[in-house]
Amino acid sequence: MKKRYLISPGPTPVPEEVLLEMAKPMIHHRTSQFSAIFAECAEGLKKIFCTDQPVLMLASSGSGAMESAVTNVFRKGDKALVVNGGKFGERWGKICEAFGLEVVWINVEWGQAVSVDAVAEALKNNPDIAGVFVQGSETSTTVAHPIQQISELTKNTDTLLVVDGITAVGVYPMPMDEWGIDIMITGSQKALMLPPGLAFISLSEKAWKRSESCDIPHFYFDLKKERKNLAADTSAYTPAASLIIGLRVVLKMMLDEGLENVYKRHDTLARATRAGVEALGLKLLAPESPANSATGLFVPETVDGGKLVKDLRENYGVTFAGGQDHLKGKIIRIAHLGYFDSFDMVVAMASIEMGLLKFGHDVQMGAGVAAVEKIVNERY
Amino acid sequence: MKKRYLISPGPTPVPEEVLLEMAKPMIHHRTSQFSAIFAECAEGLKKIFCTDQPVLMLASSGSGAMESAVTNVFRKGDKALVVNGGKFGERWGKICEAFGLEVVWINVEWGQAVSVDAVAEALKNNPDIAGVFVQGSETSTTVAHPIQQISELTKNTDTLLVVDGITAVGVYPMPMDEWGIDIMITGSQKALMLPPGLAFISLSEKAWKRSESCDIPHFYFDLKKERKNLAADTSAYTPAASLIIGLRVVLKMMLDEGLENVYKRHDTLARATRAGVEALGLKLLAPESPANSATGLFVPETVDGGKLVKDLRENYGVTFAGGQDHLKGKIIRIAHLGYFDSFDMVVAMASIEMGLLKFGHDVQMGAGVAAVEKIVNERY
Repeated sequence: MKKRYLISPGPTPVPEEVLLEMAKPMIHHRTSQFSAIFAECAEGLKKIFCTDQPVLMLASSGSGAMESAVTNVFRKGDKALVVNGGKFGERWGKICEAFGLEVVWINVEWGQAVSVDAVAEALKNNPDIAGVFVQGSETSTTVAHPIQQISELTKNTDTLLVVDGITAVGVYPMPMDEWGIDIMITGSQKALMLPPGLAFISLSEKAWKRSESCDIPHFYFDLKKERKNLAADTSAYTPAASLIIGLRVVLKMMLDEGLENVYKRHDTLARATRAGVEALGLKLLAPESPANSATGLFVPETVDGGKLVKDLRENYGVTFAGGQDHLKGKIIRIAHLGYFDSFDMVVAMASIEMGLLKFGHDVQMGAGVAAVEKIVNERY
Repeated sequence: MKKRYLISPGPTPVPEEVLLEMAKPMIHHRTSQFSAIFAECAEGLKKIFCTDQPVLMLASSGSGAMESAVTNVFRKGDKALVVNGGKFGERWGKICEAFGLEVVWINVEWGQAVSVDAVAEALKNNPDIAGVFVQGSETSTTVAHPIQQISELTKNTDTLLVVDGITAVGVYPMPMDEWGIDIMITGSQKALMLPPGLAFISLSEKAWKRSESCDIPHFYFDLKKERKNLAADTSAYTPAASLIIGLRVVLKMMLDEGLENVYKRHDTLARATRAGVEALGLKLLAPESPANSATGLFVPETVDGGKLVKDLRENYGVTFAGGQDHLKGKIIRIAHLGYFDSFDMVVAMASIEMGLLKFGHDVQMGAGVAAVEKIVNERY
């Protein structure tokens, strides 16, 4: 007998009330019944994105929405400034290249946030940059990039700011309209507490205007067509209906809790987790600009992080994410975005303490948990 | 947003696979389809009770099965020796008195197990005792009574040994046939990991024989009638069908895990919990003969235990049981019977540490959790 705990930065746990709602008998998506749900979701999403623009719902993963941002707005040969500080920054560049954009890379050490000065300099050196592509939270390195400061550089220019907010939206404030973000994206299986399969994208007026001159072919990801359909409370193609039905409940839960409280909960859990890691004498992957979505930590050098993560998953029943590329086997990523509460972080830290002890690392049992407890106790 | 944790000694958490099974569309109970399930449950229950006798399934709480043991087997005026070391021992006596038996009480201090010598002496002083009534585990005091030793006193005599195993069956070995227990009872919402509503009872040959001379009126709880129906894979009255359907899955889970492993898991969690309590400098309610079903601890004298338990439930989302009668406000009972795993005990201990800190008790945060971690780590 083994209970299972999903503490990875996507998929994240789905609340029971959402699972039960999605388990109800299927309804048809071309009905007034479904349209009412669709319309309610559209309204809720605007609040989550902090925008007056429509937020489009796509039946795809977040990567599909990333692609749609490129193929619906830019032109072949456009210059894209891409912040590459992890797997997902790299993905922005790959998508841009796949559709004929010219990429100017800003390479950032994994675990660091991009420097605003580096972005400013690249924009100065390349006055014809059509768009800056960046992550709000770079999931692979648990870093938060300085989106608000970057938006100051782009908002009164012709350059579009394109933000992958897949592990940022719903975690900490990233008000699209107020900051002047031109394209913002998120996915269902992160802070939105749903299974994977839905992506969300919203465009500023400036981005919609730019899309008029777009020359990249696209069919399934047709944002203008989706916008037109959304105005009629429906979608261009068959929507992922059960996920939309779950989304209605998720949005109600988040708005009932209050966005400020949602952000505060994430902040508390993130601070607690970081304090726990440091109390165990372990090094944080992103000590300077950590995201509140997940916390990366370096496993001790004597421990094979890949084996530890596997053992925690298979024997202890606790699923974390490990590292990718050159961080493979070196880090653990503890998630705290979405449906997480204080005791999830207690379980996360306890399992890491137990796993480290099992793998021969001399760890002071309970020290990480104690640090977590002291901070999450603020909530009660 | 608050996640909820049920760490009380009944109801206990119900596994997801059981909940999903019970959520399937209702089937009719007078069908071959249901009879097959009923028969499978009857076979499984014999393994859990460690008996060759039929185990009857009653649509009632455990107290209903306790009543049926008295009303189906004994005679008005029979002398009952009742071990009264808590709320449930007291209940045996009350049931016996309600149906005209004469009760000889053995009063035991709450938190202590009955002394075998005291039972032997009472039997010696009252050679006409028709039955000894005792709990395997006295839930209100988290004590395990010495059933095997008591059975040595009754098994070659005319006296019946009647054991309320409601929080003992499926927690630690209590082999009915091998020990010579004459009547054994349990309920669904304890180690059997189901919602409340089902009770189980099995009678030895000696008890069935005695039931021939029973003169207490009964109708709904008619064990002979149930035995006859069970032989035909059905029940005398409408069975609690969804619970029986869930029971089939529960029994499969327990037998797949293996009874030895089930007992070992309970033992590990119980030892870990007791070590955690002691590491916090708190006193155990039953230090000498603790049951592996639940652990009672005294809250510090400066803390109102009633308020603490209420705050843990309402604010922290963690439900424990408090104390009853003269222990009201003085103790917390942490459950570990049924669907509990290592990290449930971590959560239990962390929440108690956090709650004690909040209530002004100077507790070394993490100390209890560390003690739990060290012991449960044996499992991995």
